[in-house]
Amino acid sequence: MAARVEVLGVPGLPEVKAGDDLADLIAAAIRRAGLSLEPADVVVVTHKVVSKAEGRLVRLDRVTPSNTARQLAEELGRRPEDVEVILRETARLVRAAPWALIAQTRHGFVCANAGVDHSNTAPGVVSLLPEDPDASARGLQAALEAAFGVPLAVVVSDTFGRPWRLGQTNVAVGVAGMAPLNDYRGQADPAGRTLVATQVAVADEVAAAAELVMGKLDRVPVAIVRGVRYARAAGSARDLVRPAERDLFR
Amino acid sequence: MAARVEVLGVPGLPEVKAGDDLADLIAAAIRRAGLSLEPADVVVVTHKVVSKAEGRLVRLDRVTPSNTARQLAEELGRRPEDVEVILRETARLVRAAPWALIAQTRHGFVCANAGVDHSNTAPGVVSLLPEDPDASARGLQAALEAAFGVPLAVVVSDTFGRPWRLGQTNVAVGVAGMAPLNDYRGQADPAGRTLVATQVAVADEVAAAAELVMGKLDRVPVAIVRGVRYARAAGSARDLVRPAERDLFR
Repeated sequence: MAARVEVLGVPGLPEVKAGDDLADLIAAAIRRAGLSLEPADVVVVTHKVVSKAEGRLVRLDRVTPSNTARQLAEELGRRPEDVEVILRETARLVRAAPWALIAQTRHGFVCANAGVDHSNTAPGVVSLLPEDPDASARGLQAALEAAFGVPLAVVVSDTFGRPWRLGQTNVAVGVAGMAPLNDYRGQADPAGRTLVATQVAVADEVAAAAELVMGKLDRVPVAIVRGVRYARAAGSARDLVRPAERDLFR
Repeated sequence: MAARVEVLGVPGLPEVKAGDDLADLIAAAIRRAGLSLEPADVVVVTHKVVSKAEGRLVRLDRVTPSNTARQLAEELGRRPEDVEVILRETARLVRAAPWALIAQTRHGFVCANAGVDHSNTAPGVVSLLPEDPDASARGLQAALEAAFGVPLAVVVSDTFGRPWRLGQTNVAVGVAGMAPLNDYRGQADPAGRTLVATQVAVADEVAAAAELVMGKLDRVPVAIVRGVRYARAAGSARDLVRPAERDLFR
């Protein structure tokens, strides 16, 4: 039997506003699309709608830039308010160049602009990453499991750029209901050789697969990924963060 | 209509040997599995079977390490023959630590061990990346298009680790028949805001999706990814290589 994974886009989510019950909106959209959720499905939700529901939006005209932000903005040729918001989200600045400001967020993720994003928001408004994306994922998991009566996993995703490779890919920033790493260490390959260093970031691969039906311009912020083999666990995207002592690119 | 992508593992490929007609073996395995190829399918093939078919294997007991390799091996606590093969595949050493040797290959990819790999090979034998993975992909594309009578894209994949994030994900090292980047720059999001910096590495996301049905231990080195929106083009994985002047992590 051929292994088979299905990725289904969930269209028709309304524009999400602060305070909305996102799980309710997602459940309704799934049903309207004639879809359902099956046991062990992974529901992938772009962080953007999670952040909107949680009110993680900032109007730039209400931001007062610090001197540090003004100085960095001038060096990089960027808007000081924008840089101020980024610095507030930043635990550690990794690299700064006119074309990219790379920062580690409080969650531990290293990405452009500490996850602060202008796309798919009203003009002059930026979105932040959820305060605790794992908690957001857990909340969605509990509500969707109750709504559909099946065990599920949830991944909250964002698109990150990568060093050395062009283009962004979707990755997991929040995880619930699954171990984000499939661990093959100590197991034997078909030649009988023990695999010593193979951990597959299955939550990131699921996020990437989901992006294939989401698109950037289509307002499809939710996808169902069905048929994935993963280890059932509480899960946390923090398990995907490389510890500092193993980070050669600080 | 919900967007839908399907990922189908192709099982039953025999152990591939140098000189084998890989496209023939893949076509036969697809048919034996009761599958077929449809127009615009992306066939993802792990580089490992491509390298085996192309004879890109090295017996370590026939390798004579250079002084440079011996010295580096001693510093890192690794086998000199292993380091010698890695250095031969290396265009530029990026970082060296006891737990990771990060190098840029002649193709431009930055990855662990310059793509030299011990897994799924006979004991004492390592595999190299294909000499020209785009050419390998083009060859497979032409032969599979002829065999099934439909236009196809082909991605040759490898699993790479990432800085800052734990776990490996599958990425494209060879591409044929598709533009590896979906370019949204200059297009407008639903709020009417022009997206300024969004290129999605669709070939890498397709490779990641394929890995979900491949698994590390299952000998499923081929997957069909169906329903992906991509731009038809000659394509090259070199389009995914970030130019040096935009690389903040050299």
